[in-house]
Amino acid sequence: MGKESVNGLIRELKNLNTNKMYLNDFLHTWMKDDDEISAVFKTAEILRGLRELNISPKVFDSGLGISLFRDNSTRTRFSFASACNLLGLEVQDLEEGKSQIAHGETVRETANMISFMGDVIGIRDDMYIGKGHTYMKEVAAAVQEGYEDGILEQRPTLVNLQCDIDHPTQSMSDMLHVINHFGGVDKLKGKKIAMSWAYSPSYGKPLSVPQGIIGLFTRFGMDVVLAHPEGYNIMPEIESIARGNAAASGGSYKKVNSMEEAFIDADIVYPKSWAPFAVMEERTQLVGNGQFDRLEKLEQTCLAKNAKYKDWECTEKLMHSTKEGRALYMHCLPADISEISCEKGEVEASVFDRYRIPLYKEASYKPYIIAAMIFLSKFKDPADKLVNIMGSGINRIL
Amino acid sequence: MGKESVNGLIRELKNLNTNKMYLNDFLHTWMKDDDEISAVFKTAEILRGLRELNISPKVFDSGLGISLFRDNSTRTRFSFASACNLLGLEVQDLEEGKSQIAHGETVRETANMISFMGDVIGIRDDMYIGKGHTYMKEVAAAVQEGYEDGILEQRPTLVNLQCDIDHPTQSMSDMLHVINHFGGVDKLKGKKIAMSWAYSPSYGKPLSVPQGIIGLFTRFGMDVVLAHPEGYNIMPEIESIARGNAAASGGSYKKVNSMEEAFIDADIVYPKSWAPFAVMEERTQLVGNGQFDRLEKLEQTCLAKNAKYKDWECTEKLMHSTKEGRALYMHCLPADISEISCEKGEVEASVFDRYRIPLYKEASYKPYIIAAMIFLSKFKDPADKLVNIMGSGINRIL
Amino acid sequence: MGKESVNGLIRELKNLNTNKMYLNDFLHTWMKDDDEISAVFKTAEILRGLRELNISPKVFDSGLGISLFRDNSTRTRFSFASACNLLGLEVQDLEEGKSQIAHGETVRETANMISFMGDVIGIRDDMYIGKGHTYMKEVAAAVQEGYEDGILEQRPTLVNLQCDIDHPTQSMSDMLHVINHFGGVDKLKGKKIAMSWAYSPSYGKPLSVPQGIIGLFTRFGMDVVLAHPEGYNIMPEIESIARGNAAASGGSYKKVNSMEEAFIDADIVYPKSWAPFAVMEERTQLVGNGQFDRLEKLEQTCLAKNAKYKDWECTEKLMHSTKEGRALYMHCLPADISEISCEKGEVEASVFDRYRIPLYKEASYKPYIIAAMIFLSKFKDPADKLVNIMGSGINRIL
Repeated sequence: MGKESVNGLIRELKNLNTNKMYLNDFLHTWMKDDDEISAVFKTAEILRGLRELNISPKVFDSGLGISLFRDNSTRTRFSFASACNLLGLEVQDLEEGKSQIAHGETVRETANMISFMGDVIGIRDDMYIGKGHTYMKEVAAAVQEGYEDGILEQRPTLVNLQCDIDHPTQSMSDMLHVINHFGGVDKLKGKKIAMSWAYSPSYGKPLSVPQGIIGLFTRFGMDVVLAHPEGYNIMPEIESIARGNAAASGGSYKKVNSMEEAFIDADIVYPKSWAPFAVMEERTQLVGNGQFDRLEKLEQTCLAKNAKYKDWECTEKLMHSTKEGRALYMHCLPADISEISCEKGEVEASVFDRYRIPLYKEASYKPYIIAAMIFLSKFKDPADKLVNIMGSGINRIL
Repeated sequence: MGKESVNGLIRELKNLNTNKMYLNDFLHTWMKDDDEISAVFKTAEILRGLRELNISPKVFDSGLGISLFRDNSTRTRFSFASACNLLGLEVQDLEEGKSQIAHGETVRETANMISFMGDVIGIRDDMYIGKGHTYMKEVAAAVQEGYEDGILEQRPTLVNLQCDIDHPTQSMSDMLHVINHFGGVDKLKGKKIAMSWAYSPSYGKPLSVPQGIIGLFTRFGMDVVLAHPEGYNIMPEIESIARGNAAASGGSYKKVNSMEEAFIDADIVYPKSWAPFAVMEERTQLVGNGQFDRLEKLEQTCLAKNAKYKDWECTEKLMHSTKEGRALYMHCLPADISEISCEKGEVEASVFDRYRIPLYKEASYKPYIIAAMIFLSKFKDPADKLVNIMGSGINRIL
Repeated sequence: MGKESVNGLIRELKNLNTNKMYLNDFLHTWMKDDDEISAVFKTAEILRGLRELNISPKVFDSGLGISLFRDNSTRTRFSFASACNLLGLEVQDLEEGKSQIAHGETVRETANMISFMGDVIGIRDDMYIGKGHTYMKEVAAAVQEGYEDGILEQRPTLVNLQCDIDHPTQSMSDMLHVINHFGGVDKLKGKKIAMSWAYSPSYGKPLSVPQGIIGLFTRFGMDVVLAHPEGYNIMPEIESIARGNAAASGGSYKKVNSMEEAFIDADIVYPKSWAPFAVMEERTQLVGNGQFDRLEKLEQTCLAKNAKYKDWECTEKLMHSTKEGRALYMHCLPADISEISCEKGEVEASVFDRYRIPLYKEASYKPYIIAAMIFLSKFKDPADKLVNIMGSGINRIL
């Protein structure tokens, strides 16, 4: 990207209203209006452009980006670290027991104790239905109170790095990839995306990816189809949001129980495993009650049920049925690739292999999406700051 | 805090003699004279003021702050990381086995190997009586030797982040909180503080907090009362120090075996559990000999003994007996709160709740106290450096 | 080191051809020509000089140094962290299971996912013969492809922090120590070094240190003698390289089965334990097949065999037989010191003790060697950059 393109994007950003993002968190995409969503995409592209121009967008001379991961993660962890580093924040990890579901007093206290010099808190808590988002709201309330009481000199802003409901840094990276792939936001009207369940030999994958996708992609006038075997429902509230979005944007949302049907003439396919909402709810209860023997039984039942749907696989044959046989294949990675990472999985090896470069590109937007979310929460007039950064032109590498 | 207040504090700092702090460690508060203790408080306030003014006190362009924690910790770990980050040092953790008591050759070698670009080493080693402080002295001697032998280009300075004897970053944060609460150091003469043992369902909490408090607070002309059940003695050497301090400062030090007595008319109360010195000594021996079965037995005996003193709880009723019924309640956190974190603990929930904001403020000084200790060990004329920092006025956030 | 010396070294660096190092990896010393090896030494000395002059060689305003350690390590980990920090890169550790031998798809994907803002990747993978170097080549190929496909904005360069074949950051630090000890590269011709196996009560120490030493030291016209009990062979390919080097440099390479013979008139001795190549190969197969019972058996057999060679110890008596009785004793640390870290080990306590300062100095070069490798891979004209750094003269400590 050249200097002129970056300057153009900054001028476009200037026209968007981001006032409510200032000192605010990023929890769910549907809590943000269209200007705000658009601002994240533009800022992400600008930051990427600056880095390509070897201009450093370091806006913090010091400060901490606190990561709080309650689930394993390599790519989101590195994306968060990259985003923080690009802006000048040092990452400090708060390690907590994975099986622990913290609450009340402890959350309030810990949130304040780690935030004395914290500018951002990135949280991943996607394991338990009804818990992850609740936890993030508790942390947000605690640091808000701490700031108002004069305990914290700054109010660290929260970035949802995946909760039980949404996975905004993933869905936004996915969408930015789609925008670039099709040549602009205006090209998306009427495009069909099949967000489909796919078979995996594992159990209990979170719902936040399919929910995040239908909650965001329906805002762009697209025809969004959710496909899954009967019983593999996602949260009904998010389906409502998707329906509302589709109505407002002039697109559509529908649900089918056939991968084949969903793929027909699709411009984009996103085949991915998840656990049924009902199972996720039961699991949360069992963990909460410490019923670990029943938990193991639940896992066995689920794996047996999953095994009935081994034909929900993204095959070459299915890909042929998509628009001109060449829909854009997407995945949040890592994918369960048949005969590579497992005997039978979400996608045929040759399909995955053919789309490797686009898949990696899709992932490459995440650090910039996260950095954009942080940036927009920290500056009242982000476009002005970016003009300053362009003007001073400090090199990232000497 | 405004610019003028910060400049005023810098002028006051200029009048204090901090020569001996230069390139020196911070191990126990009683190893520092009054000017030095005062300089830490002033520098901490200045650094906090600078941050509030969005002026960056980054004095290191690169360098490592090495943390060596031999016990779990969230708040001290984050405080150390925050302090290092504020000054420009990147934290690197050295992970060592918790049950290991390192010695001799290994300490000397490791101390040098991690210090090639280390400007600061922060150590927490509070588990074993007779070990933590000894270990810190060994590390200090090793890096001194390494520096003199030309192995290290700089002599990293040590900050005691809690040993078996003192917890200076805690007691100094506590004192800075008290100074601000009462409106100045000159207001402390004659104020009564009750440092009291309190019941907790856990066992083996270190002695360094009560020892740190009586070793420091007796220097300010206060009436310091240590209260604990019979047999819950702390180290006699530290009581001697407290008595000496009290005599010199015009305050007093006494020990009682009743929480009620200690609380009467107290301006400050600090109710907190700890293990008896004799138990801590036995524990160290058992660990040293690998007698883990006897260790478990010791724990059982202690918990049973503790249980006899469940009435040593900071209740609303007891709080009423303090000066005007509103003594400042203090704790190093996390506290054992009755009916919240345990059935019966150190403090009644309503008392803790009423003091939450002051408690969090108390904790919020720690990053600045640590940063001040580092700062004063690195510059021969710290006030001059701070004048330069004010003058250049580089923003922390662009 | 004074400014003039640093400027002199920069002028010398200017005359060396480092073009092929630009955007390239550092895997084995024998993949680098003499100019390149010399450039690493000079750059390391320059960076050390700059730090001594309190001039900051920070060339990155942001960026990540990714560490990927598949074996425990304290000193190499800290050396890598120090090197990255000195140049302005923040270290992010990728934690992977130690027993895992990753391959194919996973390596390619992970390599890209962690590299979006990665400028350097440091890898330690020394456990399994035939695996470590292979793994590094796979990572290198993956990020090269990612860069060419436009996924990565920069091509992170790899630094081998120890593989199954070579340990270049160790052997280069060792050699820089030797150069300084003897007063220059030109003083090394005809000096004799005994790289000798020594007894240790542990099993399975990697071959990369002795291989690294004979692969590098033979390039300087030295008489390199490898000594080990029968059966404790190293990889034959590396012996071939050593022979070729010796022929080209006018030195010699020979192998003997006696520590005594190797030590006679040696200028340098490097006594260190390793496992026989054949054993390492068998071990890799057993791990690959998951035959952990047979693995344990192999360990027992090896320890029993080792025990036959307890007299392969670097004693005072043996040291007397070296050149003027005062050869330079070297070790990569930590050493197995008789009666200190074990009953019987690689070296007598009094010998180790006498050489402690030189040993620590030897280790102290590693951060600078690593920083030099990174520096030379990032700048087409490294000497020019260093002139700029000297010119701007930004202080490391304010």
